[in-house]
Amino acid sequence: MITYQIERPDETLKEALQNKIDNLTKPKGSLGRLESLALQVGMIQRTLSPVLRRPVNVIYASDHGIADEGVSKSPKEVTRQVVYNFLNGGAGVCFLARQHGFGLRIVDAGVDFDFPPLPRLTDRKIRKGTRNFLHEAAMTAEEMDKAIRYGADIVTECHREGSNVISFGEMGIGNTAASSMWMTCLTGIPLIDCVGAGSGLDCEGVRHKYEVLSRALENYKGERDDTLEVMRHFGGYEMVMAVGGMLRAAELRMTILVDGFIMTNCVLAASRLYPEMLPYCVFGHRGDEAGHKRVLDFLGASPLLDLGLRLGEGSGAICAFPILDSAVRMLNEMHSFRQAQITKYF
Amino acid sequence: MITYQIERPDETLKEALQNKIDNLTKPKGSLGRLESLALQVGMIQRTLSPVLRRPVNVIYASDHGIADEGVSKSPKEVTRQVVYNFLNGGAGVCFLARQHGFGLRIVDAGVDFDFPPLPRLTDRKIRKGTRNFLHEAAMTAEEMDKAIRYGADIVTECHREGSNVISFGEMGIGNTAASSMWMTCLTGIPLIDCVGAGSGLDCEGVRHKYEVLSRALENYKGERDDTLEVMRHFGGYEMVMAVGGMLRAAELRMTILVDGFIMTNCVLAASRLYPEMLPYCVFGHRGDEAGHKRVLDFLGASPLLDLGLRLGEGSGAICAFPILDSAVRMLNEMHSFRQAQITKYF
Repeated sequence: MITYQIERPDETLKEALQNKIDNLTKPKGSLGRLESLALQVGMIQRTLSPVLRRPVNVIYASDHGIADEGVSKSPKEVTRQVVYNFLNGGAGVCFLARQHGFGLRIVDAGVDFDFPPLPRLTDRKIRKGTRNFLHEAAMTAEEMDKAIRYGADIVTECHREGSNVISFGEMGIGNTAASSMWMTCLTGIPLIDCVGAGSGLDCEGVRHKYEVLSRALENYKGERDDTLEVMRHFGGYEMVMAVGGMLRAAELRMTILVDGFIMTNCVLAASRLYPEMLPYCVFGHRGDEAGHKRVLDFLGASPLLDLGLRLGEGSGAICAFPILDSAVRMLNEMHSFRQAQITKYF
Repeated sequence: MITYQIERPDETLKEALQNKIDNLTKPKGSLGRLESLALQVGMIQRTLSPVLRRPVNVIYASDHGIADEGVSKSPKEVTRQVVYNFLNGGAGVCFLARQHGFGLRIVDAGVDFDFPPLPRLTDRKIRKGTRNFLHEAAMTAEEMDKAIRYGADIVTECHREGSNVISFGEMGIGNTAASSMWMTCLTGIPLIDCVGAGSGLDCEGVRHKYEVLSRALENYKGERDDTLEVMRHFGGYEMVMAVGGMLRAAELRMTILVDGFIMTNCVLAASRLYPEMLPYCVFGHRGDEAGHKRVLDFLGASPLLDLGLRLGEGSGAICAFPILDSAVRMLNEMHSFRQAQITKYF
């Protein structure tokens, strides 16, 4: 696997940042989360006046062999159909991206479909879907290395194009199942507490999904706390690419907006490999998928929003962007007590 | 008092709206609060394709006689200083308004200061601050009628200028004290559970504030469930104007974004006078002021955000605007399953 040089955000500016925030014309602490976000982004960017440039949402799409076991409400063909919907601007993430000025980068990481050449689809297909992890490893070591590198390279491109704030999304029927496997292995939380309804399973469906995943866990002969092995065995390609992308984003000192259940599990894996990537993350949304709250708690993360979303695609991350933007604007635009000639009332 | 003709939002479109939402390309219900907001705004505007036009935040500013009793951390002069900060664009609400495209309307409802004529300050001064409600009613019946009418008239102007979505903010040293009195009287929740730190009192300060307010409650000889009498006795002018403004906004079928503790108590009073105004309200933010959660629960309200803000000025309402905007964009921009040729997977 490629290695990353990730430095922790610079704490030397912390006091100066806090001082600047405390001298803005408001009761001390009265802008709540905006203040802690401003502090975080200032340290990430090493400045008292951070700027958010060219926000971009990278969506990695891929299929999963485990989908053959009926672990999702949705048929596999939905993965490619939704990719087209991304490209045509009709998906949920599309109106959110337009609203908040995000670029959208759609990446075919391993969709089980032969797309014709499409100008707005980035072809990084590793294979037409992962293998079925009930019976074998989802991917080979070579495939995983390639996926990590591809994921990272796309972030480098975004950074070169001027972006310093990035979110990641995914599309892949079966990927909440894969995420539950990462979660149970890497946190030690029992599988039953990691499995949820995905795109809309009923109770019976969730029970079946849990049964399949229990068997897959029994069949897995690797170490449960070997992060790379867990990633490789359970996949998918889009998730591994996201891990590679997140690590590169932290290396490039970009602010990472984290989406829902699947992307939070990618942060889990990434931060086990490089714990110093975690302070680059701003958690956008607490999703409705069972298990999301638990993995967030495990990471010590408190997302900005709790809107009952469970769409994926990066939607929860993008919805949180204006709050991050507010934090930065607070630092840059709000007047100080001295400037405004206001009695400092605390 | 002037009367209002408020119609409840039109429920006849509910089924058609829900049907439209359920046919958008996403798992059913997966856009959570965006879906319920879309339903609400569609019913308010009586259309399957609502539009948010010219959002505006009206800030009523006024002083309070009760501030003489040391119930606030901040000296009274801060009210006028912050009004100047609004006009100069340096306050918290200013960068948020610029960020989200809100007009700002600053109204002098009763600041204890003689402003020179200022082009961006709307002069509706009733009196230079309310009377001290520890000893007497904050305002006369004539003053209250005038405040309600002034508050409403400004909303009519905003509506004439094309606005159909409005938030209300306030500035007034001492107004969390007045709000606590409204809250305890109109909900029956014990005073102790309605009193908080305001702009930053410490424990000793909150204890003193509670003592003063307890005595004021003992001295009050009116009926506690007489909404108009409670409003008149405890004031302030900016709060009464906000009640008048909210009722007019509902009458004009505008969507009302509700800010923090003080504005929620204005909704409380307004909805006791006209219960049919409540469905026009979108609660923006659960603030940090003690008691806010309780009055929200009393109203059955679940705010969109919980960011630890306690600034007032309309800041929490404006921060929630992009979520409302997302809901409307979802209805107007997202493709249906048929349009996108996607297998309907639920």
